[in-house]
Amino acid sequence: MSRRSGGFVVLEGIEGAGKSTQLERLGRRLAAAGAEVVRTREPGGTGAGERIRELLLDPALGDIAAETELLLIFAARAEHLHRVIRPALQRGAWVLSDRFTDASFAYQGAGRRLGMERVEVLEAWLQGGLRPDLVLVFDVPVRVGLERALARGKRDRIEGEDVAFFERAREAYRTRAGRDADRYRLIDGTPDPETVERAVERIWNDWLADRSG
Amino acid sequence: MSRRSGGFVVLEGIEGAGKSTQLERLGRRLAAAGAEVVRTREPGGTGAGERIRELLLDPALGDIAAETELLLIFAARAEHLHRVIRPALQRGAWVLSDRFTDASFAYQGAGRRLGMERVEVLEAWLQGGLRPDLVLVFDVPVRVGLERALARGKRDRIEGEDVAFFERAREAYRTRAGRDADRYRLIDGTPDPETVERAVERIWNDWLADRSG
Repeated sequence: MSRRSGGFVVLEGIEGAGKSTQLERLGRRLAAAGAEVVRTREPGGTGAGERIRELLLDPALGDIAAETELLLIFAARAEHLHRVIRPALQRGAWVLSDRFTDASFAYQGAGRRLGMERVEVLEAWLQGGLRPDLVLVFDVPVRVGLERALARGKRDRIEGEDVAFFERAREAYRTRAGRDADRYRLIDGTPDPETVERAVERIWNDWLADRSG
Repeated sequence: MSRRSGGFVVLEGIEGAGKSTQLERLGRRLAAAGAEVVRTREPGGTGAGERIRELLLDPALGDIAAETELLLIFAARAEHLHRVIRPALQRGAWVLSDRFTDASFAYQGAGRRLGMERVEVLEAWLQGGLRPDLVLVFDVPVRVGLERALARGKRDRIEGEDVAFFERAREAYRTRAGRDADRYRLIDGTPDPETVERAVERIWNDWLADRSG
């Protein structure tokens, strides 16, 4: 089966942007059409990765150095690429990931002010030429996203950051989406899930038509 | 207090080389002479670092990608540098660390065959110009070291590696020690701890005299 049959699709956005909900719905639609769909997430997606995720999100961890956070996330990503993403793409599956390297640019590069260069070096090392075929960036104002996240219950270590941190992350997502119209789509995540789902469906169908054309 | 009053001393070697025993003894001697001594270890040395260590040594983790292992170790190291090593050196303490970046060259670079370049990039990023003032490399034949480690009880994930892995690590330690006679001392770790301790004491006194001279 050729690599062309499936693809690597990443859903990005700050807390409460609605990406996880939309990932489930898109995944169901693709699976209903008979495709192999691998639904996964970052940090996580593997045994070791989920243990790294637990560590990263644990409020008891307190402050860790920004470099520590970035390296832990890429450690989980190395495992994710090696065990899940590359094998699935090889067999022609669709990989739908709730976050990937764009999140490192947004959260560690911009949010933690580590700068983009460190992230680029790690990206080039671990991914080589592998990039998502399509990145759906769900965009919501920070206060809207945080209120939704808060409504879900207890906040994790990252969700406990201040508004300015998320503003920087949101801005980085918007900038990256604006720079590469081929691979990125910026989607307004403010409306109700059904409205957003219809927007995703339109974007998806157009993208697929372009890709096959 | 000037940086000159203390220093950064690392004890290295494969499993069972005797470095932890010698670290305790050297630490006791320095503390008895009235110095502030920070005894630490890698991976670990901080709250987050010890949790990363647990993960790394857990046999239940099974195979992880070599890149994952290297990134986890440097994540712990970033924290260690940030919270323990740099602050201690700043206040003029002696830092005695059971392993540091030489172990990444030996175990991940050589043992796991990741090559030295990745390790060098991470070293330059996280340490800047910071290098140990003195590295004591305890050298024992692999079979001797593994027998001692085995006698201590249950083997961790790394200790479960094959002999060839440790041969590559030992060789890398010897090569690095041979290339920089100013900062490295290769010590025969085969004799009983008292004999090795006397060798460490001679080396230490000579090094200290050179340094002050």
